[in-house]
Amino acid sequence: MLKGRHLIDPLDFSVEELDEIFSFAEEIIAEPKRYSSLCNGKILATLFYEPSTRTRFSFEAAMLRLGGNVIGFSEPNSSSVSKGESIPDTIRTVGSYADIIAMRHPKEGAQKYVSHYSPVPIINAGDGGHQHPTQTLTDLLTIRKEKGSFDNLIIGICGDLKFGRTTHSLIKAMSRYKNVSFVLISPQELKIPDYIKTEILDSKCIKYLEVEKLEDVIGDLDILYMTRVQRERFFNEADYIRLKDSYILDKKKLDLSKKDLKVLHPLPRVNEISIEVDDDPKACYFRQVKNGMFVRMALMAKLLGVV
Amino acid sequence: MLKGRHLIDPLDFSVEELDEIFSFAEEIIAEPKRYSSLCNGKILATLFYEPSTRTRFSFEAAMLRLGGNVIGFSEPNSSSVSKGESIPDTIRTVGSYADIIAMRHPKEGAQKYVSHYSPVPIINAGDGGHQHPTQTLTDLLTIRKEKGSFDNLIIGICGDLKFGRTTHSLIKAMSRYKNVSFVLISPQELKIPDYIKTEILDSKCIKYLEVEKLEDVIGDLDILYMTRVQRERFFNEADYIRLKDSYILDKKKLDLSKKDLKVLHPLPRVNEISIEVDDDPKACYFRQVKNGMFVRMALMAKLLGVV
Amino acid sequence: MLKGRHLIDPLDFSVEELDEIFSFAEEIIAEPKRYSSLCNGKILATLFYEPSTRTRFSFEAAMLRLGGNVIGFSEPNSSSVSKGESIPDTIRTVGSYADIIAMRHPKEGAQKYVSHYSPVPIINAGDGGHQHPTQTLTDLLTIRKEKGSFDNLIIGICGDLKFGRTTHSLIKAMSRYKNVSFVLISPQELKIPDYIKTEILDSKCIKYLEVEKLEDVIGDLDILYMTRVQRERFFNEADYIRLKDSYILDKKKLDLSKKDLKVLHPLPRVNEISIEVDDDPKACYFRQVKNGMFVRMALMAKLLGVV
Repeated sequence: MLKGRHLIDPLDFSVEELDEIFSFAEEIIAEPKRYSSLCNGKILATLFYEPSTRTRFSFEAAMLRLGGNVIGFSEPNSSSVSKGESIPDTIRTVGSYADIIAMRHPKEGAQKYVSHYSPVPIINAGDGGHQHPTQTLTDLLTIRKEKGSFDNLIIGICGDLKFGRTTHSLIKAMSRYKNVSFVLISPQELKIPDYIKTEILDSKCIKYLEVEKLEDVIGDLDILYMTRVQRERFFNEADYIRLKDSYILDKKKLDLSKKDLKVLHPLPRVNEISIEVDDDPKACYFRQVKNGMFVRMALMAKLLGVV
Repeated sequence: MLKGRHLIDPLDFSVEELDEIFSFAEEIIAEPKRYSSLCNGKILATLFYEPSTRTRFSFEAAMLRLGGNVIGFSEPNSSSVSKGESIPDTIRTVGSYADIIAMRHPKEGAQKYVSHYSPVPIINAGDGGHQHPTQTLTDLLTIRKEKGSFDNLIIGICGDLKFGRTTHSLIKAMSRYKNVSFVLISPQELKIPDYIKTEILDSKCIKYLEVEKLEDVIGDLDILYMTRVQRERFFNEADYIRLKDSYILDKKKLDLSKKDLKVLHPLPRVNEISIEVDDDPKACYFRQVKNGMFVRMALMAKLLGVV
Repeated sequence: MLKGRHLIDPLDFSVEELDEIFSFAEEIIAEPKRYSSLCNGKILATLFYEPSTRTRFSFEAAMLRLGGNVIGFSEPNSSSVSKGESIPDTIRTVGSYADIIAMRHPKEGAQKYVSHYSPVPIINAGDGGHQHPTQTLTDLLTIRKEKGSFDNLIIGICGDLKFGRTTHSLIKAMSRYKNVSFVLISPQELKIPDYIKTEILDSKCIKYLEVEKLEDVIGDLDILYMTRVQRERFFNEADYIRLKDSYILDKKKLDLSKKDLKVLHPLPRVNEISIEVDDDPKACYFRQVKNGMFVRMALMAKLLGVV
């Protein structure tokens, strides 16, 4: 039962509950007009204590496409709502006007804290530590749509695996499905944290491989999840120069991949995927953007209990 | 006849006109779905030359819940609309796009001035001197809903009675009803201005009492309207330390009150009401927030002439 | 066929295509309720990388009055959408959420550039060089409505004809109609650029006259398009003092005009039209504001292909 629930952590929902959301998202994708009045009379409040136009637009478009409406602020300095007021009071007030709240906040745990006081469902739209559960839902829906199933996939994750929380959430979420294995592609400095290996991968006997170069493994992958590698993360310049091209996906590397590889990216990208790749059917990242809107539609409809 | 009128001052409407608004607000509260298309095709413009997220959200949610829509700005620096342009020209322009305007402005009297040029109803959403008529409407609707009537009430008003315009408006508005009396609870430095006593209370032979400590009088009250006392308002630190606890409503003081006392607060609160009071049925301030939205729905529908 | 097209330059559409838009705008003006659900389910994104409340409101009200909805930002600092991201990626993302985009940007040519990547129609809502095609559409619709036709008109354009792109666009657009002539009224320093005279007016054998003083020619005009003359544009103070009153339209000058002169102004005005003129039936500029909303309604409906 998803009605009235909050979504704070990507793992708050069971595999079955996620399936319910993804199935409904796919119904919406198939027949968007059928659901265009589903949230008539409902109001989403977008409380962005930190700007994120991309995420805000996705939530707002999602609610509008369900026939609902939106109030909100998009800038920290707009948040006079909190002037001298405790954040629980703010949430109780906003929860008097709106039926559901999407909140982004620079402080880790802010959404969890306020959810205890909220009279309406709270969705974490990103907190300081970049816990960002609707990004994970977007990634999962894209894999499901592109591959038909979550099981039996070899998933490559490439780039900054140390600081990129998106990739941690993806690993945790995908490790709940059958016969999934991971290829973790990163420079030494940016390897996945040990706790992910011991607590998630080893404890569930999930196979994984750690490598330094994308070209060495791209031929084995069913999914390639790209993220950015920032120059300033490297310990020394020589390593950076030696490795940087390994983390850029171009046509040449893509030619080494299986015919049905699917490339995902949470966006925004900088140069880690060459634009020559954009028109290749393997490139899913712009379809992924659209999936992000659809999965938010399904999520909000379920939390509001209108389906 | 309220159609086409402006609301600039809390006393712009007669007791009968207010009754019309409050009765309609109560109808909306009883059957919100019945009125969810009432303002289809109508546009509210929220012109906030000074940020106030709480008030803006209340107006926007109100219009959206009537089936209307909203355009607006929420920040002084967004108001390029007024760059080098006279404010009457701005209002004529916005009045070409929107059907009704809610305007907040740091300058006292700004809304009154522009109302002469506006082709559509203007609602004062707060001006520099904190004339804030929809707050007064919110307070009155809350009293009416909680008590069933405005007559024969003993109303305690506690805190900063000198600078708090909200309390002045409440006294003026409530003094129009039968057999109302006031208990004014404040430190010496923050007593109600003399003109309120002579022009409003004395001239209408309304009974009132001025006291320093809430605990001395709370047992007599039907309504307790709490406001904040700011430390910097006190002339000396000794007085502040001696009195500060008298202006904090906690469970212990609340236990001295009548069974049917109702506690109001315009919010945001800081610490003048202890959170332990929040769950007491006597605490009305979160219901008051919701009433604020409903009374703005009723107000806008009446000014637009759609009912 | 206008469906799916972009509007970047005021001359992007043929005279016939403009007629289609203007005719539809006049239908909307005649029966606004008939079209109030035309864009149900459609979303406009207003991407204002530079604030312009007036233009943004006009677009947003236009979409809302067609039954559509709006997402957007109104401030350069809100545009985190573009942080480290190429503007084509931004547009592809926004085009995944919205059905049509109105974009204002300080850089000349920005909209043209992004239109190559956009999956949805882009409308230029003003770029750095003040190419502002929907202002030109607004001006033209106003002339058509006030005069019944574009042909055989003597059009006076007064003020800063050197830097004011609005006036250049108007000359280019009007020079496509039959037997139109221009009276160009400006100080020497602010005369129309030579290329307009040679490439547009001379090459099409269009009659025009250049004069310094409005009062000398106002009696001949069918249309008077006023713009502002900024003091700082003058080379010397003596010229400014000698001429400044010539560029202010007051009741006295208006009395010299033909009975059916129509005065337009793109707004905002400062003091170049005296407010005593506002109530004269010859003054069209507030009707022009409203036409701006209606022509944007017609434009968006046509680009979206819903009519």
